[in-house]
Amino acid sequence: MSVQAIAWSPSGAVRIVDQCALPDALVTRDLDSAEAVAAAIRSLQVRGAPLIGIAAAMGLVAGMRPLRTGSREAFLARLAQLVQLLGSARPTAVNLRWALERMAGVATRTPGDGGAIWERLRAEAIAIWEEDRAMCRKIGERGLSLVPEGARVLTHCNTGALATGGIGTALAPIYLAHANGRKVHVYVDETRPVLQGARLTAWELQHAGIPCTVIPDSAAGALMRRAKVDVVLVGADRICANGDFANKIGTYSLAVLALHHEVPFYCAAPWSTVDASLAEGDLIPIEQRPAEEVTTIVGRAVAPPGVAALNPAFDVTPARYVTAYLTDRGLLQPPFRPD
Amino acid sequence: MSVQAIAWSPSGAVRIVDQCALPDALVTRDLDSAEAVAAAIRSLQVRGAPLIGIAAAMGLVAGMRPLRTGSREAFLARLAQLVQLLGSARPTAVNLRWALERMAGVATRTPGDGGAIWERLRAEAIAIWEEDRAMCRKIGERGLSLVPEGARVLTHCNTGALATGGIGTALAPIYLAHANGRKVHVYVDETRPVLQGARLTAWELQHAGIPCTVIPDSAAGALMRRAKVDVVLVGADRICANGDFANKIGTYSLAVLALHHEVPFYCAAPWSTVDASLAEGDLIPIEQRPAEEVTTIVGRAVAPPGVAALNPAFDVTPARYVTAYLTDRGLLQPPFRPD
Repeated sequence: MSVQAIAWSPSGAVRIVDQCALPDALVTRDLDSAEAVAAAIRSLQVRGAPLIGIAAAMGLVAGMRPLRTGSREAFLARLAQLVQLLGSARPTAVNLRWALERMAGVATRTPGDGGAIWERLRAEAIAIWEEDRAMCRKIGERGLSLVPEGARVLTHCNTGALATGGIGTALAPIYLAHANGRKVHVYVDETRPVLQGARLTAWELQHAGIPCTVIPDSAAGALMRRAKVDVVLVGADRICANGDFANKIGTYSLAVLALHHEVPFYCAAPWSTVDASLAEGDLIPIEQRPAEEVTTIVGRAVAPPGVAALNPAFDVTPARYVTAYLTDRGLLQPPFRPD
Repeated sequence: MSVQAIAWSPSGAVRIVDQCALPDALVTRDLDSAEAVAAAIRSLQVRGAPLIGIAAAMGLVAGMRPLRTGSREAFLARLAQLVQLLGSARPTAVNLRWALERMAGVATRTPGDGGAIWERLRAEAIAIWEEDRAMCRKIGERGLSLVPEGARVLTHCNTGALATGGIGTALAPIYLAHANGRKVHVYVDETRPVLQGARLTAWELQHAGIPCTVIPDSAAGALMRRAKVDVVLVGADRICANGDFANKIGTYSLAVLALHHEVPFYCAAPWSTVDASLAEGDLIPIEQRPAEEVTTIVGRAVAPPGVAALNPAFDVTPARYVTAYLTDRGLLQPPFRPD
């Protein structure tokens, strides 16, 4: 069974699995303010594009709770501040902005005072979460044919239960194939520098009893050359109108390697990841994270003091490398248009 | 100035820079037996294909010192044991076997008792080292045109002063370009799992004052896509007659990425790395190292307990990806024939 990455605490705080503590320990944290949720998003305690959208929506609810006895004006003014705060926690994923805009829109359209708006926001956050769970399931169902009996899947970063409110995006078809009794094997890119593959994907697959093997990111090419990979399934943090998409650094290299070895390469994401307002991938803002994530590991230097390091968290994969886009609306091809 | 990776101690032991201690500390160790040298090679305290050839030759000298008062028969019998021991320390690099066969051949051809043979072996080990130093310089000179003013070079693993008896193989042209006053910049793949790039290459380039930037291995593709890389220079552990070569895991992925982005890709190695007895790359034995190098970092688990991991230390890059082979004999093209 897959792990549940987010929940409400009994007191109405946002309860998260602290993903920085995995795989050493399964630690949950209760975050009772928008500031605490923003900090958890920034520090990657909560990560995964769909999950940070849900966490931000729930964080707004937790953060606005003290103002629910206030006036409409005071409530909306503070809400705008918290939307701003949460929205700036990470720049690349579109889901964060999408969830916050949806919450802000609902608030504006709801008549009444703080209490009425807060109740509406709470219902909306729950709806976002439940829609996400249903979306994961649909992605899994629509992608089930990509993971036949005996399939050897290569994946990158974490796109599973720890990245969403449900069973994941790129991992969803794998969960369902396993649940249907198919024998599958997952090669998990360790995904330097933050090691989401080794720490999180391997952990949740093992937790669910799905056979997997961790590999250094640089071994993917050799594995494909030896015909050990039947399909590559990755997630997306933002998909442009033309199909170019941003995802964890290393995704682009995998896409080139897959094309070169004629291995099908699928980008799996909820439809909400499509940002049709962006024409093409090079317009996506790419988050540059601290050099220390590369030059130190668990607090110990792995590079000489003072050396420069590049740490782009994401790269852009042009649409021409993508076999198809696996979404909750099925297997799609660009161009993508707004609803 | 480049660091010196190996030397004789005053008492005749093999003095090495312990490469497992870098970049935290510059520790030298004196190894006074062949067993100690073999252990240092196995544990990667001494690594780099040319350097382990030199270390093995010097280790034979240190290990045979106690037998230099013995008979010819006793000396040669023990020598054969130590050649076997050292030769099995690591399977992929041809230089190790090449150096040991050269030492064994010299011993057999030298008349006289243990003392005479030992003196000859000592001279031969020094010759191997000095030839390596000269070879590095020649590779640098022959490759200088590949690193013009302003060049941005991408490299993988460590192929510098810490991998050889001199200024390295793939790094040699960079050292010489820098010494000639050219502005160069080196992108250093961190080279998981053992991080020879981040720990060793960045350290020795910084030591020499050459600007460099460490990158996660998976960022190389994105860097090439953004046209930030002018040339890729890598080393080799074994080059086959047809030009296929084995090098650190990840080299093959880089080769595919370089071809895809039309970035010139050079394999730099001493001529002694050519194993013309092997027709093609898939005949090269590939060392599988312990899974723990992937699943733990500096003693801490980065993957869940019990998870499987693949840790091939090397991969094979077919000749068709290689722009040219930079050797001490110049820029060459296969097929390669024995001397």
